[in-house]
Amino acid sequence: MCGIVGIVAKSYVNQTIFDALTVLQHRGQDAAGMVTCEGNRFFLRKDNGLVNEVFRTRHMKRLEGKMGIGHVRYPTAGSSSSAEAQPFYVNSPYGIALAHNGNLTNTEQLADEIFRADLRHINTTSDSEVLLNVFAHELQALGKLRPGPEDIFKAVERVHQRCQGGYAVVAIITGYGIVAFRDPCGIRPLVYGKRETEAGSEYMVASESVALDTSGFVMERDLEPGEAIFIDTHGQVFTQQCAKDTKLAPCLFEYVYLARPDSILDGISVHEARMEMGIKLAEKVMRVAPDHDIDVVIPIPDTSRTSALEMANKLGVKFREGFIKNRYIGRTFIMPGQTQRKKSVRQKLNPIRGEFQDKVVMLVDDSIVRGTTSKQIVQMAREAGARKVYVASAAPEVRYPNVYGIDMPSASELVAHGRTAEEIGKYIGCDWMLYQDLDDLKASVTKYNPEISEFDTCVFDGLYVTGTVSPSYLRRLEERRNDDAKASAEGTKIGDNESADLLSRIE
Amino acid sequence: MCGIVGIVAKSYVNQTIFDALTVLQHRGQDAAGMVTCEGNRFFLRKDNGLVNEVFRTRHMKRLEGKMGIGHVRYPTAGSSSSAEAQPFYVNSPYGIALAHNGNLTNTEQLADEIFRADLRHINTTSDSEVLLNVFAHELQALGKLRPGPEDIFKAVERVHQRCQGGYAVVAIITGYGIVAFRDPCGIRPLVYGKRETEAGSEYMVASESVALDTSGFVMERDLEPGEAIFIDTHGQVFTQQCAKDTKLAPCLFEYVYLARPDSILDGISVHEARMEMGIKLAEKVMRVAPDHDIDVVIPIPDTSRTSALEMANKLGVKFREGFIKNRYIGRTFIMPGQTQRKKSVRQKLNPIRGEFQDKVVMLVDDSIVRGTTSKQIVQMAREAGARKVYVASAAPEVRYPNVYGIDMPSASELVAHGRTAEEIGKYIGCDWMLYQDLDDLKASVTKYNPEISEFDTCVFDGLYVTGTVSPSYLRRLEERRNDDAKASAEGTKIGDNESADLLSRIE
Amino acid sequence: MCGIVGIVAKSYVNQTIFDALTVLQHRGQDAAGMVTCEGNRFFLRKDNGLVNEVFRTRHMKRLEGKMGIGHVRYPTAGSSSSAEAQPFYVNSPYGIALAHNGNLTNTEQLADEIFRADLRHINTTSDSEVLLNVFAHELQALGKLRPGPEDIFKAVERVHQRCQGGYAVVAIITGYGIVAFRDPCGIRPLVYGKRETEAGSEYMVASESVALDTSGFVMERDLEPGEAIFIDTHGQVFTQQCAKDTKLAPCLFEYVYLARPDSILDGISVHEARMEMGIKLAEKVMRVAPDHDIDVVIPIPDTSRTSALEMANKLGVKFREGFIKNRYIGRTFIMPGQTQRKKSVRQKLNPIRGEFQDKVVMLVDDSIVRGTTSKQIVQMAREAGARKVYVASAAPEVRYPNVYGIDMPSASELVAHGRTAEEIGKYIGCDWMLYQDLDDLKASVTKYNPEISEFDTCVFDGLYVTGTVSPSYLRRLEERRNDDAKASAEGTKIGDNESADLLSRIE
Amino acid sequence: MCGIVGIVAKSYVNQTIFDALTVLQHRGQDAAGMVTCEGNRFFLRKDNGLVNEVFRTRHMKRLEGKMGIGHVRYPTAGSSSSAEAQPFYVNSPYGIALAHNGNLTNTEQLADEIFRADLRHINTTSDSEVLLNVFAHELQALGKLRPGPEDIFKAVERVHQRCQGGYAVVAIITGYGIVAFRDPCGIRPLVYGKRETEAGSEYMVASESVALDTSGFVMERDLEPGEAIFIDTHGQVFTQQCAKDTKLAPCLFEYVYLARPDSILDGISVHEARMEMGIKLAEKVMRVAPDHDIDVVIPIPDTSRTSALEMANKLGVKFREGFIKNRYIGRTFIMPGQTQRKKSVRQKLNPIRGEFQDKVVMLVDDSIVRGTTSKQIVQMAREAGARKVYVASAAPEVRYPNVYGIDMPSASELVAHGRTAEEIGKYIGCDWMLYQDLDDLKASVTKYNPEISEFDTCVFDGLYVTGTVSPSYLRRLEERRNDDAKASAEGTKIGDNESADLLSRIE
Repeated sequence: MCGIVGIVAKSYVNQTIFDALTVLQHRGQDAAGMVTCEGNRFFLRKDNGLVNEVFRTRHMKRLEGKMGIGHVRYPTAGSSSSAEAQPFYVNSPYGIALAHNGNLTNTEQLADEIFRADLRHINTTSDSEVLLNVFAHELQALGKLRPGPEDIFKAVERVHQRCQGGYAVVAIITGYGIVAFRDPCGIRPLVYGKRETEAGSEYMVASESVALDTSGFVMERDLEPGEAIFIDTHGQVFTQQCAKDTKLAPCLFEYVYLARPDSILDGISVHEARMEMGIKLAEKVMRVAPDHDIDVVIPIPDTSRTSALEMANKLGVKFREGFIKNRYIGRTFIMPGQTQRKKSVRQKLNPIRGEFQDKVVMLVDDSIVRGTTSKQIVQMAREAGARKVYVASAAPEVRYPNVYGIDMPSASELVAHGRTAEEIGKYIGCDWMLYQDLDDLKASVTKYNPEISEFDTCVFDGLYVTGTVSPSYLRRLEERRNDDAKASAEGTKIGDNESADLLSRIE
Repeated sequence: MCGIVGIVAKSYVNQTIFDALTVLQHRGQDAAGMVTCEGNRFFLRKDNGLVNEVFRTRHMKRLEGKMGIGHVRYPTAGSSSSAEAQPFYVNSPYGIALAHNGNLTNTEQLADEIFRADLRHINTTSDSEVLLNVFAHELQALGKLRPGPEDIFKAVERVHQRCQGGYAVVAIITGYGIVAFRDPCGIRPLVYGKRETEAGSEYMVASESVALDTSGFVMERDLEPGEAIFIDTHGQVFTQQCAKDTKLAPCLFEYVYLARPDSILDGISVHEARMEMGIKLAEKVMRVAPDHDIDVVIPIPDTSRTSALEMANKLGVKFREGFIKNRYIGRTFIMPGQTQRKKSVRQKLNPIRGEFQDKVVMLVDDSIVRGTTSKQIVQMAREAGARKVYVASAAPEVRYPNVYGIDMPSASELVAHGRTAEEIGKYIGCDWMLYQDLDDLKASVTKYNPEISEFDTCVFDGLYVTGTVSPSYLRRLEERRNDDAKASAEGTKIGDNESADLLSRIE
Repeated sequence: MCGIVGIVAKSYVNQTIFDALTVLQHRGQDAAGMVTCEGNRFFLRKDNGLVNEVFRTRHMKRLEGKMGIGHVRYPTAGSSSSAEAQPFYVNSPYGIALAHNGNLTNTEQLADEIFRADLRHINTTSDSEVLLNVFAHELQALGKLRPGPEDIFKAVERVHQRCQGGYAVVAIITGYGIVAFRDPCGIRPLVYGKRETEAGSEYMVASESVALDTSGFVMERDLEPGEAIFIDTHGQVFTQQCAKDTKLAPCLFEYVYLARPDSILDGISVHEARMEMGIKLAEKVMRVAPDHDIDVVIPIPDTSRTSALEMANKLGVKFREGFIKNRYIGRTFIMPGQTQRKKSVRQKLNPIRGEFQDKVVMLVDDSIVRGTTSKQIVQMAREAGARKVYVASAAPEVRYPNVYGIDMPSASELVAHGRTAEEIGKYIGCDWMLYQDLDDLKASVTKYNPEISEFDTCVFDGLYVTGTVSPSYLRRLEERRNDDAKASAEGTKIGDNESADLLSRIE
Repeated sequence: MCGIVGIVAKSYVNQTIFDALTVLQHRGQDAAGMVTCEGNRFFLRKDNGLVNEVFRTRHMKRLEGKMGIGHVRYPTAGSSSSAEAQPFYVNSPYGIALAHNGNLTNTEQLADEIFRADLRHINTTSDSEVLLNVFAHELQALGKLRPGPEDIFKAVERVHQRCQGGYAVVAIITGYGIVAFRDPCGIRPLVYGKRETEAGSEYMVASESVALDTSGFVMERDLEPGEAIFIDTHGQVFTQQCAKDTKLAPCLFEYVYLARPDSILDGISVHEARMEMGIKLAEKVMRVAPDHDIDVVIPIPDTSRTSALEMANKLGVKFREGFIKNRYIGRTFIMPGQTQRKKSVRQKLNPIRGEFQDKVVMLVDDSIVRGTTSKQIVQMAREAGARKVYVASAAPEVRYPNVYGIDMPSASELVAHGRTAEEIGKYIGCDWMLYQDLDDLKASVTKYNPEISEFDTCVFDGLYVTGTVSPSYLRRLEERRNDDAKASAEGTKIGDNESADLLSRIE
């Protein structure tokens, strides 16, 4: 997963992009980048690290210009952990820089095509570099000395025709403006907003509405699936639907876990959706175990707190914060001659004994992926004196890989892969394992925007809304993830070329 | 405020000290430091920054040894923001390094004394350097070629006699062991615990019990006021009361705000004390406004969440998380030719509109110091649509300076200075301003350990439990803080010699 | 001036490129860069600084591949001091990286052309980026999916037709090989050599033969004016003349000052040429002042030592090293509130008093540009007790700007601009000012390769061998240099966008 | 070897100390440090690296004060390569920082004594830390609240009585001034000078007179053996002889190799002494081989150039610079999976073929230590076409360890250890090996100051002028050096605690 932002303003944008990226930091802590444009010049800074670490005063001073784009990165599905920081840049045509959130499922074929058509060289394994070159090729094919909005939209159209997958994209064209667009299924979110200043209106596009809020922009609306927006250097805004056969099928996982609770995505307050998930969980409890003996509902912080509170309210049992999350996470240094110590959940969570002692506790998590953390948490709850430990997951069983930009382990590493809820409960050691039903989860979200009839729910049911994901792609993906997992387990270095195979990024 | 830790173990301690400091990071994000001892050699690393930033692999590799001490710093009362990182070191006698949490109120007099008695030069404004030199002087006065526990305790006795204030101290003596002690009023917390390994028992002293928990140490007990503990290199433990006329009068603010909820200090679970504070607040509401119209209780995250939840439960109204805290806080860059933008609370908190819309909201904070943040939050709540905004503070009015190690603005900057609760409410713009009563606050804490009869409550009532704080000291403190405030306001640089006037620290 | 190198080898080339750049460091201490190619991937590292500073172990580890190019930069004539580090990169066609030594005199026109023809955006003021895009455009125009040597030579032909100025270029094409070429007048030097290894022959092209020597390559020959060499990934070598109307007119200043004495350029040992310059100077002395009273000949270290020694030998007077050069040059820090101290020659040179005391000294320098240093040196010699101070310059009066890649001050700043030798002597305060005659200088060089009939002597006589330098270009150049000088004098910051206006280089 | 400087001035001294250290950089490129004093505060910066690398603007800004001391370090005899940067600091009495050039031969005994007498802990293996603590102890023993010059001199007296070896010391006492002194044999050099400013006189002490020259100080004189100088904060100067039985026996190697040619040490111009060494060498040639066939004399740059020139003049044969020294020395990176390449002399020196071709060359070096470099140079000369290769050394055979501060390999590694000149010549492969006679070397120096009757010549004849070097000390020294050599050869890491075992230095 990643976060993106683009701004056309009346004064320098570096600070506002910085602020927006900080607010979107939860979408990716791996790398950050920014391109600004002043006159005919681009200025770029990108590196691995948090926003606060990547941008120092010396960089900010050079990031001149009244428009720019930014990116925070989480290693995405299609790329290994050595994926490069964004934005990427090509100098023809015009000079274009691009960043995106999502994943293309036909990257390799596209890379081959653009080399044959245009002799364009791709220097990394990043699908973003491919996306950029497809867009650049299509724009160049139009051959305009000075492209207008219609040219840009035409190029976006071609991108939609050629690229498969989920993507929210923002790009900047030297001297012209910023363009942003969302895939035809609207899998990844993208919003835009406006800020009035004395010098005129300023515009921001961003992955989530919180980025608008905290910088004083007022949300205009979500981009529609397949729609593109172009904001020129003068602040003129153009929008156009650039795809046929679009449908709104946003990623359901955004509501469960990815997005910030204070964001509103496709008309739905993430906070409210999560409250509803808690209510639906409570209803399921009452349905399947009307005479349950739960003493207290305890969330696994932070995401599940909202659901857990409403679950407790609905059940009429106590809600308590029994785990304290360590805000400052340390690292484990590998000293010469020492074997690496296993990273314990203990370094992330600490139980408050009093809340567990002799109680039947219902622990609530947003979702369960590998199950290893849940296992340790259950153990911790028992050690803290719990009489029985139940676990509820606000999301259904996670059983399939995600191909639209969320990095997940290979299917075989998922605890729910080939296991029933009961078996999972046994594996993680709890006395009762309760999963949300997928329909209940969907209902929790659609309650606040009934117009959404479809979601990307692939991690739960293995159905891929784009309809273009081939079994062979899934097989390659699974193999790659397995290899990574193995390499990781064996302690060998994944990606020897980590952050090296990029032309411009080695600093 | 600061956090301290000391460990005598059977294998290298750098990683465990690192982990403990990370867990204590909430007690100080300004600087961090560690000294380890291998054979006759000390190894020191300290710098401004978070624990994660200060200790890199290259430093950790050099921090050899099976015993060591660590420190995280928050600029303390007596020193300007340019105060130096700890631990400090002197080479005579024996080689001693020391770190402490707290503040001495007779620093200047002591510095003068130790120069006259011993010609010992103090190169900083830090009271820690003074404390170290007093201890070193007293130990040297005993003239032992090889000091035993009784010598060390004798030196601690003399420290208690000479030093005034609140302090929890940990020191390491080359080749001998670690000593830790707590001031005769027990103002600042200090605990110790034990971890069994195959090679034998290991010991840790730390500011809070959470540091023990997360590294697998089992708490033995709190140190008593005036008590010292000495753990020699072989892991033998000696404890002794080193002060007369001691009393347990811990800082009440630790329970309100400073300590982690999962810590147990002087026998009291901070979490439970905070829950009780919420109950007491609810009782006060019912007492003074039995027919209140509160629709929802909303905490100002993070600390007040515990109190707010129980307050809501007790009142029987809804509890909701209406504010989302930005976990990743950015900075505001000062660009050439730009005026600095005011840091808005908006960058730290974002409201969830739905929880405020048309409601009477009771916002709960742990305490209110300057009132400027509260003012902005109240405003934010109104903009989010709240019909009425009430504010409750789990702590009484903060009206006086703290002299025992908590950095507070000067009295004149405190919103409660010379204002009634009603006037404060008016100032911050809320419809009702509700403060906890001091007796209720005390009762919330003593409920869980009735043996504590007294607290350091100076910030609330101006009473200084050590009985040694002179009006002239308070006057100088006030002046210094006013100067700092003014300098800050005028944008001039406080402490041009920031972090420079230390011999060993400039890296 | 700059230094370039390119290698196709049988094992990783990063260390050898590093070594070669170190040996060429005298050609540019401002910035350094390297691109290597492994399979289809480029790896780039470039930054401001010395070779030793720019390439650290962490960078070297990533610079994988058996072929690569490198560059050291001195700010060149056409670009401001904010010029960017090389190599530059474009991704279409094929992926090409390029570095060059020299200067184009029609940069602006070319930049405009390639935008119009190809929509190629130039993001810097560097003529190297323009040169790269011209080459890339011409190669792309051939449209080959896999280019052969003949395609590459055809593109070089077009570059010669379109680009005006002096240039020695090395470029690398992903997956294909390395191409290098020299401008049709052979103004800037370029040689190539071969190293036999067990795995086969390896090839290096470089600015000077010393780079070959110190890495064990045996010189094959100089490239001819207009000639190109292409070495494919398998180590096959192709050369071809790619220009019409070529002539060998190398820069005379290379022999006077730029090149290392142990280099052999266009068949001439720089060392021998410099010895001959000293002999010619002596002959002029004997011609114009047969009864001179010179006691001792003293070089201004380091370059002039060779000439000075032979001058002394020929004159039959003593040669002595009267000035010691400080090898470690410090910087002058600008402290807040201090006015900058003038950098004194004293920090670079220190006289040995005994060699000056009561003597008539003939100081020998390679050339005199601004005259300010000479003035201080003459003064220093007098203070050291010299009875009379004479100054000889191995090069004639420097009166005109260089447009082929040597950075010189504007004409009006040159001490010889509008002054006779006598007037110059007066200005710098010496008792006799002796300049080499231009014909003597030429003869000193052609003595060792009589086939060279022509030189680029523009700084001495204002004649530009390429025949394409327009008066308007010279005027703009002069204006720009004057602006720089003024800005510099006024202490304002030249190039606010210093090293910022490059997309890929901000680290 | 090391370089030291101390300044008491009328304005901030950081820049002047920086400049002086830069000029003394040839005495040590391993580490650099500076302490300044403003009021009662010390400011310290020290680290491994060149002066230019260690002091950055951010450090310079903090180095406030009108007096200070500085140091550049070369790893000295008594300490391993992990020796720490200087100055060192103790806080009692007064606060003292100290730096020195030289070596103590009774370090271990002193360290033990000061622990027993004062419980002073030594945290490093550096003799400087010991020297500082001896001085501090003696000053403290006097017990003055405010020490006068007489107290300081008394402490220096005691240092002379207790410390054995060669040392030139500079120390700074908080608030009082700077003291400097030289060992009773005057083995290591120390001079002082004065600079007049409008605000009054300023004083500098330094290892060599060049440091005075380049900052505009006028040399007053050398300190005498055993003499101390104290300059108080007001610029009052006190000097006093603090040792009995002194004699001037300066290190002969300073004149041969260590000092800069433009320095004047103990009344002798190093430059002139070196010229005389060349003349003496020529005389020896004429004595032992009156009908020699030498065609050309070629120096091994840089030091021997002076001797070689006069040797050639005296012999009446040509002098030529046949080797070009690479000014920019690169490093050899150790890549994973590669074996380290042997560092070749080729990377440091490059021959000019024309000067060797068919000639009988006399190569001149200042001295020969291990002989490995000489061997490679002889080989290089032969490959460049020399008919015969002779080698002359301006210094006699180096056969014994130095214990006064010059780092030398163990005796068994010295090529002259147990070999005659002829055997050495055979080893290094030359046709004639010519060594200067020790008496001729002495005469070359005493010619310019006949008052010096004695020298430290220990590396040539194994005689130790201090008369206090025990065989057991020499044995331990030899063992340690052998261990280092072995460790080095085996590729294991020498000094795992490299630069770690210092309290204050880890940055």
